[in-house]
Amino acid sequence: MQARFDPPPESGADESPAQPNPRRDFLRRGAAAGGLLAATGIGAARAAAADADAPLAVPPWTRAPGAPTGGQPYGQPSAFEKHVVRHLRPNDKQYISSSTRSPLQELDGIITPNGLFYERHHGGVPAIDPAEHRLAVHGLVDSPLLFTVDDLRRFPSESHIYFLECSGNPGYNVYGKTAAEANGLVSCAEWTGVPLRTVLAEAGVQSQAKWVAAEGADAAAMTRSIPLEKCLDDALLVYGQNGERLRPEQGYPLRLLLPGYEGNMSIKWLRRLHVTDAPVYSREETSKYTDLMPDGSARRFTFYMEAKSIITAPSGGQRLAQQGFHEIRGIAWSGRGKIARVEVSVDDGATWHDAALQEPVLSRAITRFRFPWNWQGQATVIQSRATDETGYVQPTLEALVAVRGVNGVYHNNAITPWRVAATGEITNARIKAT
Amino acid sequence: MQARFDPPPESGADESPAQPNPRRDFLRRGAAAGGLLAATGIGAARAAAADADAPLAVPPWTRAPGAPTGGQPYGQPSAFEKHVVRHLRPNDKQYISSSTRSPLQELDGIITPNGLFYERHHGGVPAIDPAEHRLAVHGLVDSPLLFTVDDLRRFPSESHIYFLECSGNPGYNVYGKTAAEANGLVSCAEWTGVPLRTVLAEAGVQSQAKWVAAEGADAAAMTRSIPLEKCLDDALLVYGQNGERLRPEQGYPLRLLLPGYEGNMSIKWLRRLHVTDAPVYSREETSKYTDLMPDGSARRFTFYMEAKSIITAPSGGQRLAQQGFHEIRGIAWSGRGKIARVEVSVDDGATWHDAALQEPVLSRAITRFRFPWNWQGQATVIQSRATDETGYVQPTLEALVAVRGVNGVYHNNAITPWRVAATGEITNARIKAT
Repeated sequence: MQARFDPPPESGADESPAQPNPRRDFLRRGAAAGGLLAATGIGAARAAAADADAPLAVPPWTRAPGAPTGGQPYGQPSAFEKHVVRHLRPNDKQYISSSTRSPLQELDGIITPNGLFYERHHGGVPAIDPAEHRLAVHGLVDSPLLFTVDDLRRFPSESHIYFLECSGNPGYNVYGKTAAEANGLVSCAEWTGVPLRTVLAEAGVQSQAKWVAAEGADAAAMTRSIPLEKCLDDALLVYGQNGERLRPEQGYPLRLLLPGYEGNMSIKWLRRLHVTDAPVYSREETSKYTDLMPDGSARRFTFYMEAKSIITAPSGGQRLAQQGFHEIRGIAWSGRGKIARVEVSVDDGATWHDAALQEPVLSRAITRFRFPWNWQGQATVIQSRATDETGYVQPTLEALVAVRGVNGVYHNNAITPWRVAATGEITNARIKAT
Repeated sequence: MQARFDPPPESGADESPAQPNPRRDFLRRGAAAGGLLAATGIGAARAAAADADAPLAVPPWTRAPGAPTGGQPYGQPSAFEKHVVRHLRPNDKQYISSSTRSPLQELDGIITPNGLFYERHHGGVPAIDPAEHRLAVHGLVDSPLLFTVDDLRRFPSESHIYFLECSGNPGYNVYGKTAAEANGLVSCAEWTGVPLRTVLAEAGVQSQAKWVAAEGADAAAMTRSIPLEKCLDDALLVYGQNGERLRPEQGYPLRLLLPGYEGNMSIKWLRRLHVTDAPVYSREETSKYTDLMPDGSARRFTFYMEAKSIITAPSGGQRLAQQGFHEIRGIAWSGRGKIARVEVSVDDGATWHDAALQEPVLSRAITRFRFPWNWQGQATVIQSRATDETGYVQPTLEALVAVRGVNGVYHNNAITPWRVAATGEITNARIKAT
């Protein structure tokens, strides 16, 4: 079939609702039967022509063979998507406390591609030869054991889709201009590995054991104490992420994965599991990752990340090009289990409406939500509020601060409100309008 | 915690079951309490030392800061995984009929990472500027329409995890040495896009319409006729794959996705939907992608890919390093819906046993199955057999040939048997032993 059509009209200024647009007007008449176009003004859609056989230009890329098959043995994104990268915060203190954020505003669905999965490092990204890597299990066990990665791959395996979130997402730095800046320290993937309980059973955990200290092989020797109950529940020794081996920045060749726990406890580049009868009180569970309360006391060991959500489209830095239908899209997650409900407000919190949840809704995984919105050009604030299966409801920032004060920087699961200007510009509502 | 340990013993020849191995022997004694190690001889696992406080060397990558955070705005696999790439068949006829295969034997879980998703092209891979791309909907519609990609992104969206498989996977070329060569023209991803029925409703499909001809913007102008019922059911206009935008080789910026249908019908680089009252009988549904029967007649329009499975580990080209426990892992899928059951045989088909299916089991998605096997060093053949929710059972190649003969090359969903030699070497059982 070599249909020949006229060149399609260029997209551009003629789509501004402020100007007359014959094509859009034609469309609105023509599509009356349809409804969504007319009712919501997806005005950029155009009649190809009054005559269905009228010519549509054959584009240049149809006129010559494309790139050879297999030219990229490991495929890469289109050159037109170079702007979709992880966000590196300016002036990050490399090797001490550094991170990159997933570009949430550019993503769809619930799976974060490995190349865009958020990063949080305390000593940079080590380049580990998997043949030389070892995992030691010792302490209060009958048989101290040492494993290669290949040893662990031989154990019975499981695969689960779980989110991972940094407990400092976003901290009380809630002024991020984009969804990535505001809440991009969360991602979701399908993880494959060995249940930790299987390996602990091989070592034979002794009766006085209550904690397991996990240590990474990075330059920070990142170390956290984990309650034994979690290690015997759903903890995984992970070597696979989204089908392939872990990426270096995600702990290659081996990491711990503690579903629902704050991300830093899922120790990357895992080299040691020390079974103990008490926490080791490492730097990362005393001077860091504790919540400093108004009375100056530090709340230790906040393991589970509470229910949270954020609207990713439309979101900060984006613009509503015209009035009419816009699907509000976002993500929700809870360390406590499944997301039960997400509500959306498009009138600065005056009223709330249930959003649709994309199936499958999985425990401790990101859930995608959507809400249809017909924007009439008014200035307003849009926001989302998640409820998990325990009945816990995502709080406002004001409610969080009333309890915790402003000393703390971790475990901020507050609602993120986006301001919509009459121009269609979207900004973080916490940034005072100028 | 700065534990100081001795260097761990090197892994290597001492793991051969043929030689005495003091460490393994120690382990088998030491881990008696455990069970899996002793019972199944994951002999490479070793006691770290009789003294749990004995030294484990601090590896070089712990002694110096790692690579800077954000050094890769779009992350890449470890340099130690360079061998995990798509398989390009030697002497492929570029621009005519070319493909690459997913390295199934290297993958875990159900999600195929975008960089390793199989490719099948008929005119190479076009480099399309999304701002210049258009989709035309015309023919038997009330309002012919023309859309930009941004137009389509504004419509209500859905995300679903579906497999995609080439109808020529593996064809009757069933002698592939590896899982990739034998059946690597199948992959699975989370797709995001607009239900095609939504867009057709906008155009207003006329009463005499029965088919939709979809045309790609590649150099082959790849064209297929699709029954209107499928277009109004679960067909998607897809722009997102595994969270990010489609890759060029998967149809960037827009493709059709027909869940469960043979892959070539999910037209990539989609530029045109022509609503008609009959098939257009394109090259790809007459001279290609039809099944030539023993009587010389060609069976046209075989849409759904039937139930299929393959063991990916251990599989061709791999080797069982030692006797004892090995988890048999594989994937199963059906264009008809959910996988209901996967059976595994480890005795050349004499007996079959149910494998465990990894949840969630999703309709028209890959399902991961696993079966525990204690190999005692015998030469044998291992294979898997899938049953889907319709009750259909994956056939043997012999059963397929008895019905279809050997003229055809498409829609071969036969069982793939792997031969296990006493040496532990795994080969394709269809290749005569030498």
